[in-house]
Amino acid sequence: MPDIDRTPAPVDSRPHVVIVGAGFGGLACASALGGTNIRVTVIDRNNYHLFTPLLYEVATATLSPADIAEPIRRILSRYPNVDVVLGEVRGVDHGARKVVLADGSFVPYDRLVLATGSVYSYFGHDDWAKIAPGMKTIENARQIRGRLLMCFEQAEMSRDPAQQRALMTAIVVGGGPTGVETAGSIAELTRHTLARDFRRIDPRLSRVLLVEAGPRILASFPEELSGYAERKLARLGVTVMTGKPVEEIRPDGVTIAGEFIPAGTIVWGAGVKASPAGGWLGVETDRAGRIPVAPDLSVPGFEGVHALGDTVALPGDDGAPLPGLAQVAKQQGEHLGAALEANLLRGEAMRPFRYRSRGNTAIIGRNAAVFDFGKRRLKGWLAWVLWAFIHVYLLVGFQKRILVTMQWLWRYATYQRGARLITQETPAPFAKTTASPVAEDSQPFERRRSVG
Amino acid sequence: MPDIDRTPAPVDSRPHVVIVGAGFGGLACASALGGTNIRVTVIDRNNYHLFTPLLYEVATATLSPADIAEPIRRILSRYPNVDVVLGEVRGVDHGARKVVLADGSFVPYDRLVLATGSVYSYFGHDDWAKIAPGMKTIENARQIRGRLLMCFEQAEMSRDPAQQRALMTAIVVGGGPTGVETAGSIAELTRHTLARDFRRIDPRLSRVLLVEAGPRILASFPEELSGYAERKLARLGVTVMTGKPVEEIRPDGVTIAGEFIPAGTIVWGAGVKASPAGGWLGVETDRAGRIPVAPDLSVPGFEGVHALGDTVALPGDDGAPLPGLAQVAKQQGEHLGAALEANLLRGEAMRPFRYRSRGNTAIIGRNAAVFDFGKRRLKGWLAWVLWAFIHVYLLVGFQKRILVTMQWLWRYATYQRGARLITQETPAPFAKTTASPVAEDSQPFERRRSVG
Repeated sequence: MPDIDRTPAPVDSRPHVVIVGAGFGGLACASALGGTNIRVTVIDRNNYHLFTPLLYEVATATLSPADIAEPIRRILSRYPNVDVVLGEVRGVDHGARKVVLADGSFVPYDRLVLATGSVYSYFGHDDWAKIAPGMKTIENARQIRGRLLMCFEQAEMSRDPAQQRALMTAIVVGGGPTGVETAGSIAELTRHTLARDFRRIDPRLSRVLLVEAGPRILASFPEELSGYAERKLARLGVTVMTGKPVEEIRPDGVTIAGEFIPAGTIVWGAGVKASPAGGWLGVETDRAGRIPVAPDLSVPGFEGVHALGDTVALPGDDGAPLPGLAQVAKQQGEHLGAALEANLLRGEAMRPFRYRSRGNTAIIGRNAAVFDFGKRRLKGWLAWVLWAFIHVYLLVGFQKRILVTMQWLWRYATYQRGARLITQETPAPFAKTTASPVAEDSQPFERRRSVG
Repeated sequence: MPDIDRTPAPVDSRPHVVIVGAGFGGLACASALGGTNIRVTVIDRNNYHLFTPLLYEVATATLSPADIAEPIRRILSRYPNVDVVLGEVRGVDHGARKVVLADGSFVPYDRLVLATGSVYSYFGHDDWAKIAPGMKTIENARQIRGRLLMCFEQAEMSRDPAQQRALMTAIVVGGGPTGVETAGSIAELTRHTLARDFRRIDPRLSRVLLVEAGPRILASFPEELSGYAERKLARLGVTVMTGKPVEEIRPDGVTIAGEFIPAGTIVWGAGVKASPAGGWLGVETDRAGRIPVAPDLSVPGFEGVHALGDTVALPGDDGAPLPGLAQVAKQQGEHLGAALEANLLRGEAMRPFRYRSRGNTAIIGRNAAVFDFGKRRLKGWLAWVLWAFIHVYLLVGFQKRILVTMQWLWRYATYQRGARLITQETPAPFAKTTASPVAEDSQPFERRRSVG
């Protein structure tokens, strides 16, 4: 592919800010720069902004992908100075001040904002990624949904009780908010939604394991809320295993603290690492791949380059790096947008960023969520209602708010879920043939008990 | 895979009816047999029933797949005598009275109902299927949606006016209801939904071609309604080309009546053929692959085997085979279910089926639809409202009705569409890299006009 400038807007005397990534941070930065006399180009490899906090609801068959994804162009179309490029970034040529795309074309910048987020880290076991998808992309969520539902179909057809038991076991690795939310939602799916739809198996007997290597789940929350979440999960039917490191993940199960547990569905929520933006610059990153940034979110040694969100390590007031939360990225994006405007148009110095926590939350299941506002804590029904209101409010677009609210009310009233689809991208080994055994090395189906 | 009986229900003295396919016909038959003293097993390769009449709305970014797909188990779970098997049928061993699945397992039957529907026919050009998907599956619809949206992204990035023009051209082959609905919906998408979201291109200048080999579109409707549809389509911006056979389809365009027209998106709606159920039995089919059935929907020479819907050729009152419509399949399913019950439980003879047309309809776009009730005809706004009411009413599940209604009202009020996602299953050549040229043999991007 030849050497093409992909900038949508014509070159003129305005300064040009290029933002890579249209997640919470990148979008907030672009919006803050919207309507100013600065040229802004947002580059993302997807055409949509994904509301990842609700991705577990796609994976567990409540919501459709489109309910939590809004076209980036649509969100930014009101700002004539902001353009969108759909493209995969391959690197940054800071000498030439260019972002290089996968096809060899480029986007030149005056200021660069790296807001590329994080990916799941498998602690050196990259082969686990295929077996135990995380909760980062629509494709991940569809894969988990297909696998989960397919396991029940296969269990219904199986004549081998051991295999049925394996297929009806889901293991969620990692006891953070995503793991807790996913495990709770899978348990409700099996106990209620699927309960009466099968003849030979009873989905209510399925097992959901939440495995955490550390001493407690929701480690970033106060102990009191961890304990509450553990009790609530137990009541939903989730077996919480803390202090149990995962040693191996195979297509047919997980080895946890020396014991192999056969499972049909395995979901990963154990650790994240920064996206490879650090590598593009060639800066030294921390162990999680994060770029160390100055308090004004600039990358030391790279004049005019800034980074934010999950892709950076910026110490908070307590000296520890700020957590990888949507609200951190969002506040940083808003801050950086305003600071860049002041700097580029009025020559003001870049201001340091300061994080103001709005509170930390996780949902466990029906009528149960936790909030940590620092001094105050909230749990139970009220926390759950608050969680729902906040998440609907934070969705981009009025239509999505209505659709998600509707589907939640529907699920609340009926225990049914509207998106129980096994579509054909469900990967092998689970869906090659609909009746294939759970993994290559497991026993083939046997006609142990004849029918009747 | 060993020789396993997949029947979910235990064998007992009840007769066993096996239905292959959970489309309109198969589901109607299963429901009619629901609650009777007959064992019923429904086999489908998907876990959901798909409301195909609205699939074009998934392909054109209004609805999500889950809005028009309901789990088969969910629909039938109220009937304890009806079981569901998720499986791909490979053949029928009528000597042994067994349906054979792809993995070698089987389901034995006393009576067999083949309700496997139709697939798109490319008139011997099977290689066209990848380039020009039809409108039969969720995967098809997602593919078309991704391609359509990706073309505009690529056009925005292109610097070559000829290539932009090609990318902004969509060709719909076949002027039947599906073709008309798809072309109208694409035109509205480009004229309204996408209109203001791009900077370098104006989506309103895109071309939508509806190509029909015969003398008029909507050939199964009265001429008056064809004319109306053609005028309405023209007003929406669709170029209707009748009497123009498609000679070749390539990844970069279509040759129509000797002229090659470059296009980014090509949709096929030109012809269908029956699914391969006829081949399973080894019966001689008609040219469209349909099984000739007796008036009672039995397959001559195969005692206890029945077939219905798009997969059969049954002459109507006028002697011509009944059309491949959902209502035909549905009425046949209901009839066959009732007839099988009467025959199996009360020894009554199988009754002949008689079709009662409820009218034929097609939607063209906003405020424009046509109805043909035989003696009466309806077109315009009222037809459009009636179309919407009927389609919402026919959806399975209250939640889906609400969701689809909501999204239609939203689109009507705002011209916006909620499902504008390019997801990663969008196939090459369009999505390999986001800025790849439209096809391998087209010219690479050139930096013809420098930016600025």
